Amino acid sequence: MLFVTLLHHPVLNSEGETITSAVANLDIHDIARTARTYGVARFFVVTPLEDQKRLVSDIVEHWVEGPGGRRNPARREALSLVEICDDLESAQASAQGLAGSQALLFATSARDGEGRVAWSTVREHLAGGDPVMLLFGTASGLAPEVFPMCAGTLPPIMARSGYRHLPVRSAVAVALDRLVGDMPR
Amino acid sequence: MLFVTLLHHPVLNSEGETITSAVANLDIHDIARTARTYGVARFFVVTPLEDQKRLVSDIVEHWVEGPGGRRNPARREALSLVEICDDLESAQASAQGLAGSQALLFATSARDGEGRVAWSTVREHLAGGDPVMLLFGTASGLAPEVFPMCAGTLPPIMARSGYRHLPVRSAVAVALDRLVGDMPR
Repeated sequence: MLFVTLLHHPVLNSEGETITSAVANLDIHDIARTARTYGVARFFVVTPLEDQKRLVSDIVEHWVEGPGGRRNPARREALSLVEICDDLESAQASAQGLAGSQALLFATSARDGEGRVAWSTVREHLAGGDPVMLLFGTASGLAPEVFPMCAGTLPPIMARSGYRHLPVRSAVAVALDRLVGDMPR
Repeated sequence: MLFVTLLHHPVLNSEGETITSAVANLDIHDIARTARTYGVARFFVVTPLEDQKRLVSDIVEHWVEGPGGRRNPARREALSLVEICDDLESAQASAQGLAGSQALLFATSARDGEGRVAWSTVREHLAGGDPVMLLFGTASGLAPEVFPMCAGTLPPIMARSGYRHLPVRSAVAVALDRLVGDMPR
């Protein structure tokens, strides 16, 4: 069972300070559609801010129960996967309830570093039936305190390009394709 | 040499009629950033509408020559790849000027069908030095008249999901990763 979590806190700004970023409507839509495409069990949106939680909840309600979903059932299907959480621990608890055991957390980062976990290792965990949760940071990425909670950190996508500004929406799509995509390998 | 072309005409609406779709600001930004990440030589944005061409040109100018790019050089680097074209033929001509020979066109589609070309075949063309242009349709996808211009059509991403609503921005990222990505295969 595979989970995707998008964190708006704790994340870094471009100065390397820990902040809470604003939720972007489009991240919710695009990542929900991608999650649905790749069979992700739930897409957790983490923000501690009450007004931001209300914003996400309004978006989801419009598309799941409201007029949006009646007009566009495909969008309803995608946004039904969204769950809003105060923090990563709540997302973990909810995932454990769904999967029956604790999910292994894997962080993502646009920065390279020591001991990055191979994509194939995470694929093997999934093939072996381990629940897995992928963590993505908004703004300039996950804050340092997230990494010790994880079983590992995936390598940056296309580090050799020297360009570390892939949109998080696109990074989620690439990561899911690498882990559970249908291209013959 | 690899090119990405995003068509706003001729594309289909959800009723299967050929239309010209509106340009989405975010498609330009996200696909330009993804193109830069994967070493794409140029990102062609095709629309025949004068006001839409002006819109794209204003966006690009803001980020390449204007205040946007001074504040955010990474965005300038990405948006420098954008070229606005009236039609696919103009994009082809420009690509030929850059590559020195005509690019092989490969269409993408969320629909499965006869004789889809394997991802590995396109990888082999690139490895052999053939210039390649990937075509992506906005709205409900490329209109039928585009396909006979192409050397082939790539298979849909995750057809087995039964969900054909991956955002075009995400589809571009996945396609580029499958063709020129840095995950060991």
